Formats: sequence, structure tokens, C-alpha cells
Amino acid sequence: MQDGADWEKWPTYDAAELGFRDHWYPTVWAHQVGAKPVPVTVCGEKVVLVRDGDTVHGLHDRCPHRGVPLSLGRRQFPGTISCPYHGWTYDLTDGKLCAVITDGPDSPISGRVSVATYPVVERMGLLFVWIGTLAEGEEPPPVERDIPAELTDNAFVLGGRTEVRDGNWRFAAENGFDEGHAKYLHNTALWRLFKVMPTWNVTRIVEQDGWLVRVQDEVHWEAEFPGVGSFTNKRWWKRMPLPDRPGRNGDANPVIAGLDLPGFVSIRLPGILRVAYPQFVHYEWYVPVDADHVRYVQLMVRFETGAKALAFKAKYLAAIRWLFHGQFTAQDAWMVDVMDSPPERLYRPDLSLTAWRRHVEQAGLVLQPTAPRRGH
Amino acid sequence: MQDGADWEKWPTYDAAELGFRDHWYPTVWAHQVGAKPVPVTVCGEKVVLVRDGDTVHGLHDRCPHRGVPLSLGRRQFPGTISCPYHGWTYDLTDGKLCAVITDGPDSPISGRVSVATYPVVERMGLLFVWIGTLAEGEEPPPVERDIPAELTDNAFVLGGRTEVRDGNWRFAAENGFDEGHAKYLHNTALWRLFKVMPTWNVTRIVEQDGWLVRVQDEVHWEAEFPGVGSFTNKRWWKRMPLPDRPGRNGDANPVIAGLDLPGFVSIRLPGILRVAYPQFVHYEWYVPVDADHVRYVQLMVRFETGAKALAFKAKYLAAIRWLFHGQFTAQDAWMVDVMDSPPERLYRPDLSLTAWRRHVEQAGLVLQPTAPRRGH
Amino acid sequence: MQDGADWEKWPTYDAAELGFRDHWYPTVWAHQVGAKPVPVTVCGEKVVLVRDGDTVHGLHDRCPHRGVPLSLGRRQFPGTISCPYHGWTYDLTDGKLCAVITDGPDSPISGRVSVATYPVVERMGLLFVWIGTLAEGEEPPPVERDIPAELTDNAFVLGGRTEVRDGNWRFAAENGFDEGHAKYLHNTALWRLFKVMPTWNVTRIVEQDGWLVRVQDEVHWEAEFPGVGSFTNKRWWKRMPLPDRPGRNGDANPVIAGLDLPGFVSIRLPGILRVAYPQFVHYEWYVPVDADHVRYVQLMVRFETGAKALAFKAKYLAAIRWLFHGQFTAQDAWMVDVMDSPPERLYRPDLSLTAWRRHVEQAGLVLQPTAPRRGH
Repeated sequence: MQDGADWEKWPTYDAAELGFRDHWYPTVWAHQVGAKPVPVTVCGEKVVLVRDGDTVHGLHDRCPHRGVPLSLGRRQFPGTISCPYHGWTYDLTDGKLCAVITDGPDSPISGRVSVATYPVVERMGLLFVWIGTLAEGEEPPPVERDIPAELTDNAFVLGGRTEVRDGNWRFAAENGFDEGHAKYLHNTALWRLFKVMPTWNVTRIVEQDGWLVRVQDEVHWEAEFPGVGSFTNKRWWKRMPLPDRPGRNGDANPVIAGLDLPGFVSIRLPGILRVAYPQFVHYEWYVPVDADHVRYVQLMVRFETGAKALAFKAKYLAAIRWLFHGQFTAQDAWMVDVMDSPPERLYRPDLSLTAWRRHVEQAGLVLQPTAPRRGH
Repeated sequence: MQDGADWEKWPTYDAAELGFRDHWYPTVWAHQVGAKPVPVTVCGEKVVLVRDGDTVHGLHDRCPHRGVPLSLGRRQFPGTISCPYHGWTYDLTDGKLCAVITDGPDSPISGRVSVATYPVVERMGLLFVWIGTLAEGEEPPPVERDIPAELTDNAFVLGGRTEVRDGNWRFAAENGFDEGHAKYLHNTALWRLFKVMPTWNVTRIVEQDGWLVRVQDEVHWEAEFPGVGSFTNKRWWKRMPLPDRPGRNGDANPVIAGLDLPGFVSIRLPGILRVAYPQFVHYEWYVPVDADHVRYVQLMVRFETGAKALAFKAKYLAAIRWLFHGQFTAQDAWMVDVMDSPPERLYRPDLSLTAWRRHVEQAGLVLQPTAPRRGH
Repeated sequence: MQDGADWEKWPTYDAAELGFRDHWYPTVWAHQVGAKPVPVTVCGEKVVLVRDGDTVHGLHDRCPHRGVPLSLGRRQFPGTISCPYHGWTYDLTDGKLCAVITDGPDSPISGRVSVATYPVVERMGLLFVWIGTLAEGEEPPPVERDIPAELTDNAFVLGGRTEVRDGNWRFAAENGFDEGHAKYLHNTALWRLFKVMPTWNVTRIVEQDGWLVRVQDEVHWEAEFPGVGSFTNKRWWKRMPLPDRPGRNGDANPVIAGLDLPGFVSIRLPGILRVAYPQFVHYEWYVPVDADHVRYVQLMVRFETGAKALAFKAKYLAAIRWLFHGQFTAQDAWMVDVMDSPPERLYRPDLSLTAWRRHVEQAGLVLQPTAPRRGH
């Protein structure tokens, strides 16, 4: 049982209000960036996403001239974006000031100023932005480093949502990997209407392939609290998990469509959760926005193609999107918003939280400074 | 004439932004606390009121685990409240953590954590909460200590309102006992439409039975200001107070239904005003909420039973509630909100304010600290 | 080319968040101040404007008693205003407390307190308020000192608007005199729908009669930016400025209705812009309100009388008010609001900004202190 009143034991984690540099973070869907530039904030940095044909570019969303956001700008010339104020025009590929409309072709400042650029790639329909430091000419590592391996090596179909929610990203990540709450908080969720959830478990956390994995050594479906009452989620209309179905009843290594996933619920850096349901896998990304906001990206993936994939897509749009990615995770969003700690009093199931904090603490990550970085 | 620019002369009062400890404060009506817990803030402390049958309990509105408000919780077992997040379940009588649903019956933390409890009693339909320090096993003094004696010894009927308003509680209290403003600010109030108010008075403040009492030595119904103009509240349609009616014309000791009340307007600690009208008595409580909000509880009491009481109740609901407890005191609320002092320049009638400040200063009260108190 | 990252070179200007004292500033239209007092904030000072017949008086908008705004007050007696709370009554001419209704005619404080008064005069339908320090009995300089001379010596007709906008007054002033932006930002403005604007100019700033004047040595109507593209505002439906029309094509000294104005665009202290169109002259005042708001007064003036004046007034109300004083300057308001500098990177056309900053810096002005001044 942890009894830590504050986060002193995890000083890096305590300071990681805006997350960590040198990572790829998912933002909006690629189809959301059309003719109009789209501003996003990642780890406290203001980025404007600008489409140029099939490519989406990321630039610091601030014209160095007078500080006007480039996301308010115009697409004056191909391959560039122009600040709406004085027509300072930046090349989308390198951020260089390549023309200053209101200062003529011989403008002495042209070519001498640039805005920071952010590597952007599209994966699974999402635009991933690299937040990190690169030496002159240095390329960022492949985005695959920050995407679960099974999502880069297999065919699948997915449905998902990306949205900015209230609360710091660490509360969202802790809520995601938290062993304790789901069984109580979500027992009013429609998503679980026909499926029994346990009352309490005995859990271990193991590390496997870079993931922290919750392994359930015991699952208790009912409990009698002396002098208080009894509790169970069992109802006559609810189905118990079948013993041959993975995950639900605490299997350490569920096998889904041939994938050997290390456990029902796991988390990894820089803040990605995986929940392996019998037929599909749910992923959550907790992307730092600012101290009080987190971008919450949730994907539901089925590793199938053809008719089965199509059927899943229909099921996602008709049900999962509203029941699970809607009402169910809205209960999480509610808690992430009202949570107010430290100070805190931890309990036995919080070993999932402390394992996660320790994991982050020891990963040798580069803190994103909390004072907002301006200019270039 | 006082001429104090700031509140240096009353350092305790100056620091009493959140009021004083070791007192009972009225909050919401008992009938407002039903199946759903109700959060209130008193003297800056967050309290959740939870009904259990005929009893309402008060607990610190913060689960020590992760800081989620217990007022968002569920009534899972009789006599307890459960945090909605992980089902930490607290005994309503002593605040002790008596079950942790998601950690099973052998949870080692169960019984080892508790939230602060607040004594709560119901009087006159209102829930009074004790804000103060009690030693282990110590009982708070009876709530009667903080209720005017005539309201504990007599039969009566009442109507009233309790609401949170903008402004600090001291501005509300000063406005209540202020001798100066009523005659001018309220001369547009419908409540006084048929009753003349004085233009100016000569007033003394005396102390009697723990109350500060305004005694009017002179009442002036009209005044001529040289070079400026004349002022009176007299109109052909307005009635002068009858000489045999108490209060209106400055009687020191009005006698209402056999009660010998010490004056028309009086105030006492920790912030209770009494206005003795000929037929009924109006009370106001100024309960500190936070630095910028005050709970304003107003009661209109008639010391009668039977048919007369019923008639009064009808009159209250039909008229007094809207004219006096509505429009009239809304004018006070307006001033309490816009008032911005110190600095201030006091004038002759402000002897009522300075008497009150001195009275508070010398009462040996325990200041509520202004930094919010968290955890347990 | 200026390359200043911050405003260190202009320390007075940098500190002039609330502008400068000892000047007349326009506020609301005289007709907006009727029976009801009107509060305005000028250079951070709260002023209440009160009409008494043909005269409008300015008083500090705070009763020294308890800090209630006098703009909430009543007009109880002629030539005075009374605080709504206790009827403290102030003489509008000298701000002296001349009667205290609720303290009677012998009130000892009467005549011993006063609120600051602000000289107010009406010119061109606007109420100008003097913000500055005056010795006992000293008169402020004539308001004509702070109004362009041609507006005090000639007959004319005008239309205009006065409104409070987001952003500091310095951003508004800089945007006004800024040589660079109009040609790009406003090229979508309906006001310029039928008139070509240049692409870039070569400009000098000269000082003439207390005005800083933009003199355009070169005007370029199109430009080819190598590797980027070409830009021009020319369209088949747009008219080029006629060579014999002043201003449009950079004439140094346009002659309008016999006035010899020193250039197309000029600015002067304490923040007045003049744009000399061929047929009429546009003026803008940037009046400091608080750190984040500016009063933006825009006037369109035609120096004619009789039928021509009437025709202009009709044209103003039907078109100019909506196209120029509406949509066109709303584009400026947008930039003033989103601008966020320093830090900044200046470019060649910003010589207009730096000339203005230097001009302010060297003018020996009296800074308005940024801490709000309270009481009297």
C-alpha cells in the first residue's frame, strides 16, 4: 500500500505538466485539415497544420514579425502560407520567409527569418506531430517508434475520436491505467449493461516489450463488507466472461487475431494505453495540450480485413462510438476533470499508478519546459 | 465622526475575510437535501451535506484518495457515502473509511482513513453547520448559542430565503446594521410604498444582551439643505408610523407579542441582524462563503400560532417574499456587490459600523485562516 | 531595417500602457449622455459623465465614503449627483460634497470631502475629457491643442463612431500609422473593391507641423517574387487612382478643399491619425482605456457646407459607415486584438512604427502610472 502524500518521489513526473520532448504525438484527423490551416497545441507548443496537396506541414503558429498567428493566414502562393497582416510568406517545407509581399522582391529581410517547423506524418488517418529538438538537417526517428508495433505490422480496420478534454494529461493517463476505478465508476455504463464486471482483483504489474502490463492474479466477482453490505455487479441479465475468451477474466496474454498481446490492459510511453478486448483492441493516447487540457485520442481496432472489417466498421459507427467512445469514456473525462491531487492517499490497487509513475521517472525522458516557448 | 481611511484600527476584523471559527452557521433548507448530497461552502470550507433518514450529516467534501468531491458520490450502502471514482465508502456518522469496494473486504486501508465531519443540526427548517475545532470526543456547544433566544423559547411561524450572493460577508453585515443607507437607498422600494421613511436620524448604539442596538434619539422626517434643496420621503399616499407602534419611530424597546426586544435594529455575533417590525421580526444571517461570496439567510418571523400564523404565512408567500425578501433586499445585495472599500471616508451615521467592527474586534474570536484548508 | 527584439530602445513608450497625462481625450458622443450618468474609463481612470442642461461634467466615478460608483447614482437635486447608497451629494462643478441627505443639514462632513473633477468639453459632438494634473485654480490648456488644426478653423460635416475595442492603445496606434499592412490585410475589404491598392512602396517619414507624415517615394502596383509567384491588387474591374487626385498615389501634400495637408497618412500625439482621401479626411483617435482595451474614435470629415455637406452625410450613413468605419477597420481591430509583441522582428516598412515610437519617446510626456489610482 502506497501512502505518498505528494509526488516528491517522482520529481520528473511531478514536473512533467507539459509532457516530454522527442516524441511523436497524434493530433487531429488528416481529413480535418483542408484548405484552411488548423491550429493545435501540443505539449504547450502552438503549431499550425497546413495542407499542401497530399502533404500536411507543421509550423510554429506565430509570425515572428508582430506575433500574429499564422493559422489566421492566407494561402497566397503554392507551397507557402502568408501572415494575414503584412503578407510575410513562409515556405511550408522549411519555414523560411521566402517572400514579403508588402516589402517588394528586394526585401532585405526575405530569406533571413524563419519559423520553426514541426515534422508531421499521417498514420491511421491521424496527423502525428514531432515535438522535440533536432540538429541542423537531422531527421526525427520514425513515427513507428511511438506507435504500438501491432498497428504498424498488420492489416486492420479502425474507428476513433480525437478531442481536447479538461484536465492535465497525467490525470488522464493515470485514469487509463488505474486498476481500481473501472469496476465501480463504470458500473453504470451502458457499455457494460450485459457484461458482468468484477468487484475487486488482485493485480501485479509486469513490464513486457516496453509496456507496463496489469496481470490479474485473482478476480473477485462479489464481496461482503462486514457491517456495511455486499457488492456485486452480477445481474440476472448480465453475461459472465467465457473462460475461453481472453482478457475479461484476467488472462495474462490474450491472443487476438493471432497477435500475442501481453495482457488485458497495458500502458507505454509517452502515454498510450491498450485494452485488449476479445474481438478488438482499444487504444488511448493522452497528449499534453497545456497544464489544464489533454488531447484524448481513442481508437478501436479490429485486426481483420474484408467483410469482417466492414461489419466491424458498421458496429463501431452504430454502437461502440456512442457507448464506449462516448458515454463510457465520458465518465473518465468527468473524473479527470474533477480530480484534485496531490495531496493524495493511495491504496492497494494504486500500484498500477505508482508503477507507471516510476516507469516514467526512470525512462530518462526530456522534460518539456513549462514556461511557454515563444518566437524562434 | 470617524475618518478612518483603512481598517488598521480593527486588525482582526480586517483579517476576517472568511469569518470566525467555533460557530454554528445556517446553510440550506433541510428539505433541499434529499437523496442527492448537497455541497455547501462555509467559511471557505467545502462541506457535503448527506441525508440519512431524518438525519443530515456533514463531511469534508473531498475524498482523500485523489481529491474527488464526495458530493458527486453514490449512496451505495445505508449510512454511508461512496466516492464515485473507486468506491471508497465513508461512514456518515464519523467519516471513517468503512469499506473500499474495489479493494475487497481485506483492504488494508479500510478503517485507517477518515474525512473530517461537521456537526449538523436542523433548526427552523435550516441546516446549521458547526465550523470549529473540537478535541477527540468533544461535542460542540448547543446551536442555541448562535440563534437569537426568542427563536428558541417561543412558538412562531416563519418564511424565508437562503441564497449565495456576491460580496464579502463583512460588507453584507455592515450594510445590514448600517444606520445611514436605508432611508435613501430603499426609498424607491415597493416595500415602503405606503410607509414614510425618515430623512435622517440621530442615533446611539448601545449593547444589550449581547446585541448591539441602534437607538434613535431623534428622527427627522424632512430636511432643507441650504443651496441644494429639500428632501423628504413624505407623500400624500404614504402613512406615517403610528405613535403607538414600536420600531418605526425609534422606540428603544419595541414590544412584539409580549417579547421585549431591545430596539428596532440590532446585530450580534457571528453576524445576525434583527429588525423588529410592529407585527413581525426580520432576521438576516451573513454566512461567510469565500472571500467574494456571502450566504444571505433571511427569515421573517411572526410570534403567533393558529389562524394568525396561517394568515401570516399566506401574507409572506403572497407579498413579503417578493417585496421585502425580494426587491428590497436585492437593493442591499447590489450595494454589497459594488462596494469597494477601504479606503473609505466615514460619516456620523457610520458609528453603527464602527461600533460593530469594535464589537467584533474585542470579542476574542478565532479567525478562520484565509488559505483554504485541504485534506485531513 | 530595424531588428529590435523588444522595446528596450523606447523605455517610455514601453511603460506607456495607460498612455500619457496632460492631454484631452475624446470619449462618447455628447448625445449619449442624457438623464442617466455614463461611466467611461480613460487612461485607466474611472470617470462618470453627468449632464446638467447643456453642460456635461466629469467626476471621479467613486464615492469616497464606501467606494460605490457615482455612475449608479441619482439626480436628486439640480447641479448635483447623489450616491445611491447614502445620498452623499456632490456639486457637479467642483466635486464638493454639498449635502449628505441621510446625515441632515448639519452634517459635519458636508463641504469637507470632494471627488476629483475632470474638465469636459464638447467638440464635434464628442465629449473630450482632460486627464492630467492641475494646480489649485489652474485651467487646462484649450482642447484645440489636442485636435487637428483644420478641424478647429474650418466648416465641415462629419460622420463617425466611438467604441471600445480589445487590445492596448499602442497596438492600435501602430496599426494605424503602419505603412505595411493596409495593402495586404485590407485587399479583401469591400471598401477597396473598385480601387486598386499598391503592392509595396518605398516610404520616408518626415515631421511637419507636429505630425509624422508618410511620404511615398515609390509606389509599386505589382511584384514578382522569384520562385514564389507574382502579386498585384489590379483587377479588370478596379480603377487606378487618377494622377491628379491627391493621396492615393503618394502625393506628399494633398490639397483638399483648399487645405494644405502634409501627406496622405500622418499621426500625432497623443495618438491621432489622419488619412487624407481625395474628397474627405479620415481621423482616428486611440484613447487608452486599460492595459487591454482602447477607445477607437473614427471620424470621416468633408470640408464642405450646404448641399455638398448634406450629400456627404447621406453617403456616410449609407455606405462609408458600414464599409470603411465598419468592415475595413474591423480588420484592423482583429489584428490589434491578436497581435502579441514584443518579441518582434521588424522589417523595412516598419520605419513608420519606429519613427512613431521615437517620436513618442522624445516628446517629454508625463506617463500615466499603471497602478490604478483610487480615492482622492
